[in-house]
Amino acid sequence: MDPVVTMAGKLEPRGDWEATRCSVARALDVVGTRSAFLILREAFYGTSRFDDFVARVGISESVAAARLRELVAEGLLEREAYREEGQRTRHRYRLTEMGAGLLPALVALMQWGDRWLAEDGGPVELRHRECGERVEAHLRCAAGHDVEAGMLELAAPRRR
Amino acid sequence: MDPVVTMAGKLEPRGDWEATRCSVARALDVVGTRSAFLILREAFYGTSRFDDFVARVGISESVAAARLRELVAEGLLEREAYREEGQRTRHRYRLTEMGAGLLPALVALMQWGDRWLAEDGGPVELRHRECGERVEAHLRCAAGHDVEAGMLELAAPRRR
Repeated sequence: MDPVVTMAGKLEPRGDWEATRCSVARALDVVGTRSAFLILREAFYGTSRFDDFVARVGISESVAAARLRELVAEGLLEREAYREEGQRTRHRYRLTEMGAGLLPALVALMQWGDRWLAEDGGPVELRHRECGERVEAHLRCAAGHDVEAGMLELAAPRRR
Repeated sequence: MDPVVTMAGKLEPRGDWEATRCSVARALDVVGTRSAFLILREAFYGTSRFDDFVARVGISESVAAARLRELVAEGLLEREAYREEGQRTRHRYRLTEMGAGLLPALVALMQWGDRWLAEDGGPVELRHRECGERVEAHLRCAAGHDVEAGMLELAAPRRR
């Protein structure tokens, strides 16, 4: 099989450069744990309270506290104090614009899991609310062409 | 902020069900480590030999060996023996169709890292080879509509 992504310009051959500032690696430094990604899944589903993250992700309180603290520090979630009548002050968490920007990655992982790891296409499906059709992540170029594996090249950005 | 994804039908309210067979969680069981994802990045870039994975991902030989073994066992990479004239038999690794199916997730993570974590838009860019335009992962429904955060609902699959 040919490589899925071919190297262009000064990136060819691959052995001549190091991906030291790679954005995939940087992204994984922030969301590279299973629990961080599943907390984000729950935030996308509208979960906001600490106890609900613990229960719905199925992690311990200490792991949830550590992950939420990291996700807030890194700017993916924001933490907000609130108080219901007669109760003590609590905190809720919600996605920032930065956190919400991970939606395509989350959808892409879900559809891959549905396709390759679920026996029946997956237990839930994401739909476009307006028309009811199933939603998928896919690749498109700025000129509007659908792009598949094998049609991609990796290059140094033109702007520099 | 409203939840990014609203719950439909019997999935509302979120507190009434558990995401026990969640395809995101299953996907992360397979590629939930930073090193697994970076090995796949290199496989997409055409890397096939053990020593090159070690050097290009920047991991130890023992971590590379463990990850490659897992990725082969899980079906994302295949391992093939080859022999160059006068050398001992070596092995090379390449993406299976299952492994190549992670491309949208990888691209989505890269573009998120480019946007939110790189000071300059990222060190490399993925382009559509034919037209040269930048490629991005985005969401689209089966009816062809572009779908953004806030336009999604999560529902039980219709087929059951």
